[in-house]
Amino acid sequence: MEGRNEKKYISKAIINRLPRYYRYLGELKAKGVERISSSELSNIMKVTASQIRQDLNNFGGFGQQGYGYNVDYLQEEIGKILGIDRPHKIVTVGAGNLGSALSGYQNFPRYGFNIMAMFDNDEAKIGKVIHGIPVLPVSGIVDYINENDIEIVILTIPKEAARELLHELEGTKIKGVWNFAHTDFEMPGGIVVENVHLSESLMRLSYEIANSGEPV
Amino acid sequence: MEGRNEKKYISKAIINRLPRYYRYLGELKAKGVERISSSELSNIMKVTASQIRQDLNNFGGFGQQGYGYNVDYLQEEIGKILGIDRPHKIVTVGAGNLGSALSGYQNFPRYGFNIMAMFDNDEAKIGKVIHGIPVLPVSGIVDYINENDIEIVILTIPKEAARELLHELEGTKIKGVWNFAHTDFEMPGGIVVENVHLSESLMRLSYEIANSGEPV
Repeated sequence: MEGRNEKKYISKAIINRLPRYYRYLGELKAKGVERISSSELSNIMKVTASQIRQDLNNFGGFGQQGYGYNVDYLQEEIGKILGIDRPHKIVTVGAGNLGSALSGYQNFPRYGFNIMAMFDNDEAKIGKVIHGIPVLPVSGIVDYINENDIEIVILTIPKEAARELLHELEGTKIKGVWNFAHTDFEMPGGIVVENVHLSESLMRLSYEIANSGEPV
Repeated sequence: MEGRNEKKYISKAIINRLPRYYRYLGELKAKGVERISSSELSNIMKVTASQIRQDLNNFGGFGQQGYGYNVDYLQEEIGKILGIDRPHKIVTVGAGNLGSALSGYQNFPRYGFNIMAMFDNDEAKIGKVIHGIPVLPVSGIVDYINENDIEIVILTIPKEAARELLHELEGTKIKGVWNFAHTDFEMPGGIVVENVHLSESLMRLSYEIANSGEPV
């Protein structure tokens, strides 16, 4: 576990695989599996065993020669790497369809992603409680974030409105933005942004359809 | 444009970038930009100019020495590669929050992704019209798909129910599944699956927060 505090470059591909490791290990745990070899994990993950060993060696290994991996321990350690060993307070901007769906998404709380409030500027929505989450006026978001130690903002508003809002949020203590607006944002001051493009995911599917099997 | 029909291995990374090219070119077009050099496109895309040339050379190039790329033409050609030069008929299974949000997502129709119907087994939802889209009983989905030439199924139901349904859909003419169930599916018979894991995207954000700047 030495060297864990040294900054080390971890490739995007590995970071992308970590949540999958975490999920598959959770499924194994639910099935009562206590330990697993890298080759068994390889079969499930559809990644080579040497890739798995390489991936995990970036963080200190976690495996034992001749034993494999302890499922519970490995999942917990990956959880720590992912920063989901502690809860995150989150607010959603935009109480429309997507904002409400994400805010009520049942898988988030189990990873410690807790949606505290939704914000909107539609008078018809303000004051409502959707999936147990209050809808508050956007005008109060900066105060709310500062008073409640909100770490993550989910953005589900159009890109122009999102751009303006992000400018206001630069001075707050937020650490990350999960952006569903139809553009790529960057934030100053070490605030990280994960840009999600649902349309692009559907386009990749369309590409695969157009390029799989016989020409249509 | 020769060789376009030869099967050629295109890496996942390139396929992931194609929708971004398409989106950025659309933004340029909206701004009235008619042509662009690979270095200008490089600045916007945050990918090296040589990477852009390499990416596009996989499909025949599209650029002209000393001129750069014609924005309109390049976007159109990338649209063809992505298979979004023609409309796709889609149905959504699950008329809950996420299913309704995705079905009503305003960006999809502009790429020719047309949601024709939602399916649910909740009597309270069946018969409703949400965002202009009818909610029909799941029991009729196979007939509906065959009669209406549905190509893509969006899955927003729990994984056990999704697994059963996919088994039924194997015999239909669908070509792709956009899966939001909390598991990775594969389908036989050349039906392609794009598995979307919203939690994993949020975990990547959490990772970046945990590993950016000063230790928390």
